[in-house]
Amino acid sequence: MKSSSQYLYDSYKKHFQEIADIKYASAVLQWDQETYLPQKGNDTRGRQIATLSELAHEKFTSEQTGHLLNELMMRDDLSSKQKRNIELSFEDYKKNKKLPSAFVRKSTEAINKSFHAWVSARKENNFKIFEQPLQEVIDIKKEETELLGYVSHPYDALMNEYDKGLTVKFTDVLFSALIPHLTVILNRIKEVPQIENDFLSQFFDKNSQWDFSIDLLKSIHFDFEAGRQDISEHPFTTNFSSRDVRLTTRIDEYDFGNMTWSCIHEGGHGLYEQGLPYEEYGLPLGEYCSLSIHESQSRIWENCIGRSLAFWEHQFPNLKKYFPNQLKNISTVDFYRGINKVTPSLIRTEADELTYHFHVLIRYEIEKQLIEGTINSNDIPFVWNELYLKHLGVKVPDDKSGCLQDVHWSHGSFGYFATYSIGSLYAAQMWNAIQNNQPDVLEQLKIGNSSSIFSWLKSNIYPWGRFYNSNELCKKVTGEVLNAEHFINYINSKCKTIYKYK
Amino acid sequence: MKSSSQYLYDSYKKHFQEIADIKYASAVLQWDQETYLPQKGNDTRGRQIATLSELAHEKFTSEQTGHLLNELMMRDDLSSKQKRNIELSFEDYKKNKKLPSAFVRKSTEAINKSFHAWVSARKENNFKIFEQPLQEVIDIKKEETELLGYVSHPYDALMNEYDKGLTVKFTDVLFSALIPHLTVILNRIKEVPQIENDFLSQFFDKNSQWDFSIDLLKSIHFDFEAGRQDISEHPFTTNFSSRDVRLTTRIDEYDFGNMTWSCIHEGGHGLYEQGLPYEEYGLPLGEYCSLSIHESQSRIWENCIGRSLAFWEHQFPNLKKYFPNQLKNISTVDFYRGINKVTPSLIRTEADELTYHFHVLIRYEIEKQLIEGTINSNDIPFVWNELYLKHLGVKVPDDKSGCLQDVHWSHGSFGYFATYSIGSLYAAQMWNAIQNNQPDVLEQLKIGNSSSIFSWLKSNIYPWGRFYNSNELCKKVTGEVLNAEHFINYINSKCKTIYKYK
Repeated sequence: MKSSSQYLYDSYKKHFQEIADIKYASAVLQWDQETYLPQKGNDTRGRQIATLSELAHEKFTSEQTGHLLNELMMRDDLSSKQKRNIELSFEDYKKNKKLPSAFVRKSTEAINKSFHAWVSARKENNFKIFEQPLQEVIDIKKEETELLGYVSHPYDALMNEYDKGLTVKFTDVLFSALIPHLTVILNRIKEVPQIENDFLSQFFDKNSQWDFSIDLLKSIHFDFEAGRQDISEHPFTTNFSSRDVRLTTRIDEYDFGNMTWSCIHEGGHGLYEQGLPYEEYGLPLGEYCSLSIHESQSRIWENCIGRSLAFWEHQFPNLKKYFPNQLKNISTVDFYRGINKVTPSLIRTEADELTYHFHVLIRYEIEKQLIEGTINSNDIPFVWNELYLKHLGVKVPDDKSGCLQDVHWSHGSFGYFATYSIGSLYAAQMWNAIQNNQPDVLEQLKIGNSSSIFSWLKSNIYPWGRFYNSNELCKKVTGEVLNAEHFINYINSKCKTIYKYK
Repeated sequence: MKSSSQYLYDSYKKHFQEIADIKYASAVLQWDQETYLPQKGNDTRGRQIATLSELAHEKFTSEQTGHLLNELMMRDDLSSKQKRNIELSFEDYKKNKKLPSAFVRKSTEAINKSFHAWVSARKENNFKIFEQPLQEVIDIKKEETELLGYVSHPYDALMNEYDKGLTVKFTDVLFSALIPHLTVILNRIKEVPQIENDFLSQFFDKNSQWDFSIDLLKSIHFDFEAGRQDISEHPFTTNFSSRDVRLTTRIDEYDFGNMTWSCIHEGGHGLYEQGLPYEEYGLPLGEYCSLSIHESQSRIWENCIGRSLAFWEHQFPNLKKYFPNQLKNISTVDFYRGINKVTPSLIRTEADELTYHFHVLIRYEIEKQLIEGTINSNDIPFVWNELYLKHLGVKVPDDKSGCLQDVHWSHGSFGYFATYSIGSLYAAQMWNAIQNNQPDVLEQLKIGNSSSIFSWLKSNIYPWGRFYNSNELCKKVTGEVLNAEHFINYINSKCKTIYKYK
């Protein structure tokens, strides 16, 4: 017979799954907005999404939720997974209760305003238009850190939204271990002849690129019975359950790399979502661990695997079938070197694996200071341009290719950027663990077999959901907490092979 | 300054628009289910749709709704449109309250069971499997007629769900005016040589058919900035506001007619949805009048216009550009005759404009008797086959091509079929009014111009929403209530021209 705790747990499950139904419904509406929505449908779509969000929020912050969770927190006859679900839901609930609805409303309004200002500012290529609305968002974010609470640095409270347990202290240590090494490598590369990769900018027709993208996704085990790919302006991954995962990509006919690595990147995100436990639908253990771990799952496929020589030894002949003329004089090694060219640049999303971290560092430093209050939004262009010159040696010509390039701040997403770098470091550390665990992994990749990599991720990363936080999971599967060493070794060895410096 | 009634009306509007947001969100999820959903996503999608339906229902039947409507029904300082919205919402609310939630649950369960039984029965080509589950649905429908109430015939209560004010008495009069004339025409056709239209069954490739379908929709003024077309197994039209209308079509490469007239048909539905007043979003005046009027809007474009010689005098040369080989020996008149071939057949959805009404009559007669209780579900196959022999002279070989062909009964949609015929009669009556009003309409069609037809519909039919019921609207725009005469004249004159009988 079912115990009273099990009855109560069932009520909790039903309640939270209904909230998930509403949230996922809203995600379907957003997916449709980015892929198929006719232009004039935008206004009504906005209000439909807003209504669903409010409903989900109301249901989540209702007395019923509080009652269920308070009651279940006192029960000790639940399984360890059930207990963990309750703990995590309770954490979410308490955090949510810390933000009064008047504050949430104010925040939504400020973000809405700042997003529109950012769009105008980009159009006019003038940060001044964005300055004041952005400062309002920053002030609200500062207030949020006080409402949420923190131990040592206010910015910790914001980073926690994306990666629970992440701190300024930890991130500073990581960057200070990482950045000097990357600077050394970058300087060495400057001393040797640069790689030529113009062949990536020929004409690659849309339909063949699309077909190749499907091949790529199949090769990395994306399940098309539990997901699909469509076209959107900015690639993204979303899901409406672990059995319905939607990827999008974009195709630039004069830039082969644009689709290819964003496709593998989103595919990696998609594999993670498809691997989350379906039976935990709507509950914390059915949700991804953190944005950092999510990013590690995209980066390991995009970079560690998708930019490796072994991977392309198998894929390149296939690619040549689609584009025989464009690639007829290119060898696999030429291709491998070309797709790994390292060069300082202005735009984060177009950066190579190495210089990418400088882009992230710059944003991280600026955000920290904005939240500390040591700088304000009107200082951003100056600080931004100084840091780009210092770290990457590039001169920022205008705001559009400088501090107006990313949407994140206009959305109020402060504390997000670091997870991009941290995700890459997790990826390198996991990739190292996989290679130690499976010494023939590169040999297998060369013959087009990535099953053992997929199996490793499928049994070590995907099934845990939010059971562990990022670093606990990392320690469990790699034997040590996150450190910069594995990424440094990985990128150093790759650059050395490619650039042939001493 | 706003009056208290206006404040109250604003609350009503906000409340009903939120309910609409949820319903339309559910419609997006259903549209996605029919067009893009990956196979394994089906289960979760089912529960997401169910949760949204329950939420919308809860909100609609809440005390808040009752309070707002009761209060507003007593106000006399509202505009006539506002009053009409309140009256109609109140009607809906009261009707909804007549069905206790236990009854709704029982009904949903029975329909779910009968739908699955229908699928199995079709697969096994055996009505027996469907018989008992269907009888349960029929019994529930009988109960529903008592709960909803009716004046003279219980079946009236069910027809009212689809077309307010429609009665058995009125429908019987229509059919008895219509059917004898159609039988006479059918007999005349039997006496003259049959038309040859095999050319429609050649190979017509998918992509060209798709491109032609877009041409067709543009030619009838479908606004692609406020809607789109996609592929699904069964063509349908849905909308998420009047500025986001989704059509679907299917393409059979060996049956040119399959896509063409279903595309124009759905396009006609879509034009109506796009023409409904956007400012009445979520309120009765923003909703379609009735299923009969909806059907009139699809049929007028599909048949009166889309199967006219004038229309194809312009479109046929365009079509020939897509399929020069298939159509090289076919003249516009051959084509016109071919697409209007009249011949008794087994399947409703494949029937021509004339014999279509016999298919509807047969279902109408059977439903009426089932609801009266003069026959039961186990009588259906016999009665069905008898009626097909009597009216169309065709022998039904098995249940699949007989009484198992339509999904409607398995969905509990009793009272629906008549609206198909009635919609065609409304279409013919409106078409007659348009021709009287615009004597050069056919001349305009010949040069590809259907703007004046579109304008007439856009000013006479679309903007009214549910302000009038079907027959009130008909009288207002054609000067008389619905009668069979216009359709009889229309089809008689067409068949005479095509078959050249005396």
